[in-house]
Amino acid sequence: MIRCRGVLVSLFLGVLLHSTALADGRQEIQFPDLPGYRTLKCDFHMHTVFSDGTVWPTVRVEEAWREGLDAFAITDHIDYRPHKEDMQLRHNRPYELVEKAAKAQNLLLIRGVEISRDTPPGHFNVLFLKDIDPLDKPNFYDIFQQAGEQKAFVFWNHPSWQGAERGQWGEEQTKLLESKRLHAIEVCNTETYDATAHQYAIDKKLAIVGNSDMHDPTPYGERTADSHRTVTLVFAKERTLDAIREALDAGRTAVWCQNRLIGREEQLAALFTASVQISPAFQRRDPDTLCVEIRNRCELDIELQRIGEGKPARITLPAKATSVVNLQVPAKDAAEGVGYEVTNFLTAPKKPLAVKLVVPQQ
Amino acid sequence: MIRCRGVLVSLFLGVLLHSTALADGRQEIQFPDLPGYRTLKCDFHMHTVFSDGTVWPTVRVEEAWREGLDAFAITDHIDYRPHKEDMQLRHNRPYELVEKAAKAQNLLLIRGVEISRDTPPGHFNVLFLKDIDPLDKPNFYDIFQQAGEQKAFVFWNHPSWQGAERGQWGEEQTKLLESKRLHAIEVCNTETYDATAHQYAIDKKLAIVGNSDMHDPTPYGERTADSHRTVTLVFAKERTLDAIREALDAGRTAVWCQNRLIGREEQLAALFTASVQISPAFQRRDPDTLCVEIRNRCELDIELQRIGEGKPARITLPAKATSVVNLQVPAKDAAEGVGYEVTNFLTAPKKPLAVKLVVPQQ
Amino acid sequence: MIRCRGVLVSLFLGVLLHSTALADGRQEIQFPDLPGYRTLKCDFHMHTVFSDGTVWPTVRVEEAWREGLDAFAITDHIDYRPHKEDMQLRHNRPYELVEKAAKAQNLLLIRGVEISRDTPPGHFNVLFLKDIDPLDKPNFYDIFQQAGEQKAFVFWNHPSWQGAERGQWGEEQTKLLESKRLHAIEVCNTETYDATAHQYAIDKKLAIVGNSDMHDPTPYGERTADSHRTVTLVFAKERTLDAIREALDAGRTAVWCQNRLIGREEQLAALFTASVQISPAFQRRDPDTLCVEIRNRCELDIELQRIGEGKPARITLPAKATSVVNLQVPAKDAAEGVGYEVTNFLTAPKKPLAVKLVVPQQ
Amino acid sequence: MIRCRGVLVSLFLGVLLHSTALADGRQEIQFPDLPGYRTLKCDFHMHTVFSDGTVWPTVRVEEAWREGLDAFAITDHIDYRPHKEDMQLRHNRPYELVEKAAKAQNLLLIRGVEISRDTPPGHFNVLFLKDIDPLDKPNFYDIFQQAGEQKAFVFWNHPSWQGAERGQWGEEQTKLLESKRLHAIEVCNTETYDATAHQYAIDKKLAIVGNSDMHDPTPYGERTADSHRTVTLVFAKERTLDAIREALDAGRTAVWCQNRLIGREEQLAALFTASVQISPAFQRRDPDTLCVEIRNRCELDIELQRIGEGKPARITLPAKATSVVNLQVPAKDAAEGVGYEVTNFLTAPKKPLAVKLVVPQQ
Repeated sequence: MIRCRGVLVSLFLGVLLHSTALADGRQEIQFPDLPGYRTLKCDFHMHTVFSDGTVWPTVRVEEAWREGLDAFAITDHIDYRPHKEDMQLRHNRPYELVEKAAKAQNLLLIRGVEISRDTPPGHFNVLFLKDIDPLDKPNFYDIFQQAGEQKAFVFWNHPSWQGAERGQWGEEQTKLLESKRLHAIEVCNTETYDATAHQYAIDKKLAIVGNSDMHDPTPYGERTADSHRTVTLVFAKERTLDAIREALDAGRTAVWCQNRLIGREEQLAALFTASVQISPAFQRRDPDTLCVEIRNRCELDIELQRIGEGKPARITLPAKATSVVNLQVPAKDAAEGVGYEVTNFLTAPKKPLAVKLVVPQQ
Repeated sequence: MIRCRGVLVSLFLGVLLHSTALADGRQEIQFPDLPGYRTLKCDFHMHTVFSDGTVWPTVRVEEAWREGLDAFAITDHIDYRPHKEDMQLRHNRPYELVEKAAKAQNLLLIRGVEISRDTPPGHFNVLFLKDIDPLDKPNFYDIFQQAGEQKAFVFWNHPSWQGAERGQWGEEQTKLLESKRLHAIEVCNTETYDATAHQYAIDKKLAIVGNSDMHDPTPYGERTADSHRTVTLVFAKERTLDAIREALDAGRTAVWCQNRLIGREEQLAALFTASVQISPAFQRRDPDTLCVEIRNRCELDIELQRIGEGKPARITLPAKATSVVNLQVPAKDAAEGVGYEVTNFLTAPKKPLAVKLVVPQQ
Repeated sequence: MIRCRGVLVSLFLGVLLHSTALADGRQEIQFPDLPGYRTLKCDFHMHTVFSDGTVWPTVRVEEAWREGLDAFAITDHIDYRPHKEDMQLRHNRPYELVEKAAKAQNLLLIRGVEISRDTPPGHFNVLFLKDIDPLDKPNFYDIFQQAGEQKAFVFWNHPSWQGAERGQWGEEQTKLLESKRLHAIEVCNTETYDATAHQYAIDKKLAIVGNSDMHDPTPYGERTADSHRTVTLVFAKERTLDAIREALDAGRTAVWCQNRLIGREEQLAALFTASVQISPAFQRRDPDTLCVEIRNRCELDIELQRIGEGKPARITLPAKATSVVNLQVPAKDAAEGVGYEVTNFLTAPKKPLAVKLVVPQQ
Repeated sequence: MIRCRGVLVSLFLGVLLHSTALADGRQEIQFPDLPGYRTLKCDFHMHTVFSDGTVWPTVRVEEAWREGLDAFAITDHIDYRPHKEDMQLRHNRPYELVEKAAKAQNLLLIRGVEISRDTPPGHFNVLFLKDIDPLDKPNFYDIFQQAGEQKAFVFWNHPSWQGAERGQWGEEQTKLLESKRLHAIEVCNTETYDATAHQYAIDKKLAIVGNSDMHDPTPYGERTADSHRTVTLVFAKERTLDAIREALDAGRTAVWCQNRLIGREEQLAALFTASVQISPAFQRRDPDTLCVEIRNRCELDIELQRIGEGKPARITLPAKATSVVNLQVPAKDAAEGVGYEVTNFLTAPKKPLAVKLVVPQQ
């Protein structure tokens, strides 16, 4: 058969099938919006045959749609091009090839590129470009000079990818930061969380991002709590490219990687509040123990550990489900709530978010 | 090991495991509430070892919880007791055995029983009883006399279960209806829809119910659009037994059976409106064709067929997902919307719900 | 990150991950060998970015491995090249790019190409080529002249793909057949069975093939009886390219498409015999009814329908599972067996394979 | 509806459905036979409503069939009967209730019971009884005296179930062992492996068993490598009760619990040899490195760790799949093979099976 304009024409036996990929509908990633902000699901790092990936750029649109993204960037390497014997590699071409298809699926498309120098200094993604070609320069700092002129947004990719030692913060990072040409850091890449990068984000006041860095066709079928694409949650004033950029500049992000959320305390606390709903007690087991339903509206199982005495010591709230919990609430804590740590919401390396569980009066 | 007070004590190797069934969390059945009403998910028909089922009554509580029910009734046969050689069968006993466990899971428990005479007249479920024992009478009409005295709610079960011919509306049904002792009819049982029963519901102004009639352990694991327990959706003013009874008396129900909803036009229309959300057009393909996102918030794939000319001729909106649809909207229909039939929302046998799809202005 | 020599180098945090695709192991397609022949699973039709596909050729190796193929051919269009603006398209290049990777996975790789003229005459796959370039000719018959010189194997692809009318056997097919330059016909393509093509295979004595015709990344995850790649089963004397060619020339093939097998009576009968094992009766229900276990060792549910009187009227033997069947075997049929039709083993359009079920003596 | 003679009669709308449970076919547990022995899959410990379980005994037959068992025992507590208020509890009754159904599914049924004294001495299962009633005695040793008279087979259940301390080998165990009234020990129960019990099995020369100890309906749906019933593999001369007993007496067993096999070296080594098949090298990467296919025919992922130098250091062979492995085989080891430990085949606590991988000459 022959594929026409991106849609597989399958008229076999007179049956017109649409491309199965797009016909399957979109599995939304369910994280609630925050007060004043929409929670947009973004992936800012992926490859195609135009560098060392193995799919045509249009595949990235279909995957982004099916997997529930709001925005994405194709970021082929500007300086690593193993397919050059077979392809005319033009840096803006992947963007151009998918622009129309992304628009037809109502996906926000960001023009970006990956700069992949040896480590150190390592790899950097440059987003929100108008034209990638001027960045194809031999000198490292010239590239970022040009990125600056285009008012691009820059993050340091997977710092430890060639080992923690080679991924140390270096002179180049300092120079970029001081010249305001480094804005964020990739704390999660593929399915790996990098605690050192997390600490750099805090120390250097960089925005936190996490991405799939996909090279091959997506390995993700039906999404589960355990198996999903790493994404950056961007808390944006509206669903537009400008609003995403504003949120990135303001550092309003969090990263969902495996069964963890990484982010700043402000955003993680707001997301916890928006996601977790406690019912009034429907029964009292003993004077201190209240039976409540707790609903977890978000995509990951939330793991709680009691601060101090009291039961339960641990609670797991399964994703998108309701649990019955017999919660010990001493009378003195009824108003203010009982303290738990959310062990899989990290505000810094090894530092879980602290929350109070308050049982509402009927 | 030994089971203590309904919880399996498994201290093997010092690890205290809770009963796995209850620990797994609850998979909510996602149908939105209607304006002024909560959408409660109910199953009014199931069995245990106390008649011809194969599970102890407490299993029904665990299943109801896991599968997202709000209310349920255990309805063992009063007059068919194949386990009588091994069991002391007391009619109220299943209710008593689960009362506490149901309360601990915040489930609403209805005391009920099944009357299983040969067909005709067939089987009837009697719900909202105070005491089942007085119904254990030889004479058919005496039973319903007693049910009436207890102000019970009665429905005719699976009319065609022994063949359509034996399941015809008969003299007994007429007598019960005239004496106001028949209030509803089981239009779906297990995974089967009974069109004749549906027509009786309309002709005789009976409430519509649908139930699992489970005898064995639930066959349903992780719920999918294709594989789920048949339930009655009850549109109740609040989540209480009294409110369920009021809604049943008022006929505010619908049945979810396989990939279909069966109900009255008023409820199905309201449920469609609450479930389906159309975005403003994000693109215009040609003067008449708008690209929109349509979100289906409910548990079943919604199947649409165009009324008259226009594209698409058919639309499938996958359950709990968003679809991009290129919708042909002639200028003359922009305000009022374009007409579709929802082929799997049935307001009468072979009669799909008619709806208008209106694309909101930005 | 950077992909090196076909393997994604993911040294993030010091962990060396292998390409996940290859690490997952191979899910064998389980059809038993036949006496004297190995049952090889082959796909002779698929595309890459080198024509109108969306994956780099190496992806086809990973998919073939994971999905349990023994042999495959990449058959990009020689005459339809929508990516020519971005790629230097050399016809032999996909073969060259995967040759080493296929060998490393012990997969048999066939050099092939698709000739895609307008219908009629339609599309043809040419396999077992030494060099594709000489086939790039404007004249239709010249191409097949060249194919003949290379002793290639040719089949007519998906005859009805642009409608049954345009897919009629035509003058070109007759000429190719008469000059011995057409050897087989694609009776199944993607997930569609073409009964007309099946009849042509019988009438014209052509070998039967069925293929995936994949353009996009494989949509198949964990294989199930319902969801799998269409493959040609080749009954070859050994697992080599020469033996596959010999078997194709001899017509020893069958096609597994959805829940059906299509093939010649000889092969389907042998495959049934090799797949289905009946135990001696372990119990006798009544004088005529034997309780037996029937094991189905192959990948598809086998559907049986009784010929004439006797029970069961229908039997489903689930894939790779054992069933208990109460089989009515009148004394007169005990030796010879009772007759069934295998309704999903088709030896001609609408003609199921007839078999005898014989219960062995203990 | 009404259940008749164990089959749910569902004539709703004229369609006769068989009990879905039994209709679904049987998912065989795939472990190969050993030379001279059949590998039978057995579960010797489970409960029903006749003690503290929650299912009618017939449910255990359906589950055993679906989950691929060859033999099973219902072992309700003789001395713990929480349902006695509702049931006439006769000790032989569960056996009698399922005898016919087990035979109809060709399952081997063992008459058994659980003796559940406080720990110490703890719980014991007594199998291969002719009549359970005579064991209902107050004195602990009298019970086993009676078991001995019936030539029963006795194992100590889940020694550590109330903590490792209470589960120490005690005076009672010694007495039973010395009087030849203790023959085996439950090394795995539910999904837990008990290393202390494993050591007792070795020190005291007891047979190794592992069982589900199910109380509730089976939690296992479609079986996966990760989620399955714990079973005892019995290597028996044929598929009969007598042969199972002979194998138990001879200690020819192994236990499959989660992703581990526990057993004696002789059986585990034979099972490894029967399960793992290495192909001749199909390619040579470098003088020492051979590319081979390794097929794992059994139900669990096999984990290998190299003994000494050489690559790969670790190999995972996924269940029922084939892997390509680049195996370093120094010339000096070609004949004898290279050494690996099978880290999930345990011949003693923390002691993995040692094997040699030999690449056959072509």
